[in-house]
Amino acid sequence: MKKLINQPDDVVRESLEGFAAAFSGMIRLHVDPVYIVRADAPAKGKVGVLSGGGSGHEPMHGGFVGYGMLDAACPGAIFTSPTPDQMQEATRAINGGVGVLHIIKNYTGDIMNFEMAADLARDEGIEVASVIIDDDVAVKDSLYTAGRRGVGTTVLAEKITGAAAQQGRPLAEVADVCQRVNGYGRSMGVALTSCTVPHVGHATFELPEDQMEIGIGIHGEPGRARTALQPADQVTEMLMEPVIADLPFKTGDEVLLFVNGMGGTPLPELHIVYRKALQIATQHGLKVTRSLVGPYMTSLEMAGCSVTLLKLNAELTALWDAPVCTPGMRWGM
Amino acid sequence: MKKLINQPDDVVRESLEGFAAAFSGMIRLHVDPVYIVRADAPAKGKVGVLSGGGSGHEPMHGGFVGYGMLDAACPGAIFTSPTPDQMQEATRAINGGVGVLHIIKNYTGDIMNFEMAADLARDEGIEVASVIIDDDVAVKDSLYTAGRRGVGTTVLAEKITGAAAQQGRPLAEVADVCQRVNGYGRSMGVALTSCTVPHVGHATFELPEDQMEIGIGIHGEPGRARTALQPADQVTEMLMEPVIADLPFKTGDEVLLFVNGMGGTPLPELHIVYRKALQIATQHGLKVTRSLVGPYMTSLEMAGCSVTLLKLNAELTALWDAPVCTPGMRWGM
Repeated sequence: MKKLINQPDDVVRESLEGFAAAFSGMIRLHVDPVYIVRADAPAKGKVGVLSGGGSGHEPMHGGFVGYGMLDAACPGAIFTSPTPDQMQEATRAINGGVGVLHIIKNYTGDIMNFEMAADLARDEGIEVASVIIDDDVAVKDSLYTAGRRGVGTTVLAEKITGAAAQQGRPLAEVADVCQRVNGYGRSMGVALTSCTVPHVGHATFELPEDQMEIGIGIHGEPGRARTALQPADQVTEMLMEPVIADLPFKTGDEVLLFVNGMGGTPLPELHIVYRKALQIATQHGLKVTRSLVGPYMTSLEMAGCSVTLLKLNAELTALWDAPVCTPGMRWGM
Repeated sequence: MKKLINQPDDVVRESLEGFAAAFSGMIRLHVDPVYIVRADAPAKGKVGVLSGGGSGHEPMHGGFVGYGMLDAACPGAIFTSPTPDQMQEATRAINGGVGVLHIIKNYTGDIMNFEMAADLARDEGIEVASVIIDDDVAVKDSLYTAGRRGVGTTVLAEKITGAAAQQGRPLAEVADVCQRVNGYGRSMGVALTSCTVPHVGHATFELPEDQMEIGIGIHGEPGRARTALQPADQVTEMLMEPVIADLPFKTGDEVLLFVNGMGGTPLPELHIVYRKALQIATQHGLKVTRSLVGPYMTSLEMAGCSVTLLKLNAELTALWDAPVCTPGMRWGM
């Protein structure tokens, strides 16, 4: 295992300390229980937006805490759900008096713990709504998941929902925006290599030099098929066709095209995938009006990518374009 | 070789096409000869800032084209200098009538070609100034380089110099700012793995599973020493001590601390390195007032990082903070 770490058990704590020091103007780190929170939280009269999940997917979620996106994020151990006490305290810390939305990726542990935290917060008199992201068209039911897994749409949902909350909309409306983003977003990924969880010390799975895993999960869960490595254009077709087939799309629809890097894939390769994905979307009559390309939801150093299509309308486009200032996504201010 | 590419010879062209499509609001791609240029170039009355070099280091340089940074960038083949005709035409395309600055990393091929392009542009009546970046303290003279190599300070120089040009300063002053950034910046890197150039098809060098290369160059050039893999804190010391020893620093100086990812290293590891680098800088009496952490100057999928310290003053800090809007760096607008 070749990693720039000290003790495997210290990876999450030490990386969060470095992260918090590097971005001290935007966020601060709360210790015991651990969460990342906006430096100016709570924002009185604003709905708080909370997400979280296992570490190892950076910049998601901690890197998306800041103006116009998340108010707090709870990091678990690598690829492991955070605990209800983290979520409960973070919920309390970002409660500006008008409720808190939990954005939850569809993994069994996350859902159970967020539900427990929501109940505990409600006992304290905090209004809590929850939206589950389950956009991965690759497989139904999977390791760690009943139903579809939550993947790339999570990033888009956190941006767009955070913008709605920043505008001062009430909790029910903020939750509705998030729900619609999930309904309009579809994703699928591919891995060329595995990744190594530090405290495990060896690769999560074996993938021969001439093979790839189509439909991979963000923790290395099995996908649809293990096939021979193909040229990027064919791989992109294998990802885009199921995404487009599954979407509530029609010709002329405006979409956001998101090509996400899994961590170990260089930017030029993501741009090659974007190039072909754009061609395919256009051939299907879709109009790509917004784009995102880069490693936003990673799986440690895994080589691979995912594509996400999100159907847009004027409201969602305006929320996407709204100012955001976080360590991992920043524009308009 | 596991990569999301089609034909190795098409990697640069196809990735630039995808890049230009994804960021069409900020930049456009000129073909034959190839360069990336600000969508609104030339800016009349503004000094143009041009850089370039081999591809494979993305987002540098093309990702730094836009408001407040570069006006154009010339990408070569992977790890290969662009040609004088690219540089000459890009110089012409960004000439707003008050001259163009060339920012050149210290590699023999780049210097020779940029010099030739500058001469050709001057023959056309365009005023051209050049600044060479040579901030790598690891080794003197190297594969491809006489003197020190140009590494991480290049990113900072492009941001700060671009801000000076955006303010409308004259060419001599813009060049002077760039020269001062180079004088105040020092860097050193480490590799845990090699990378694979697509048209070569195998790793550039072999690095056993238990070893690392301290002082690596961004094309895999040999560094100071090949040693046993160490914990991140020790590795960070091995990078920071030579950087601090070499700098024209004194206690109380304000500095920018830049931890750069080589491509294959996950963000949490960069944050672990940042954490220790900050401690070391502080122990040496330096005051870290600005930070940058992430993969800004990569070597394809190489695992590793570099650290850069840049001595700041009020002027350079203000230029660093100035608004920038490029695909790879964006804030303040």
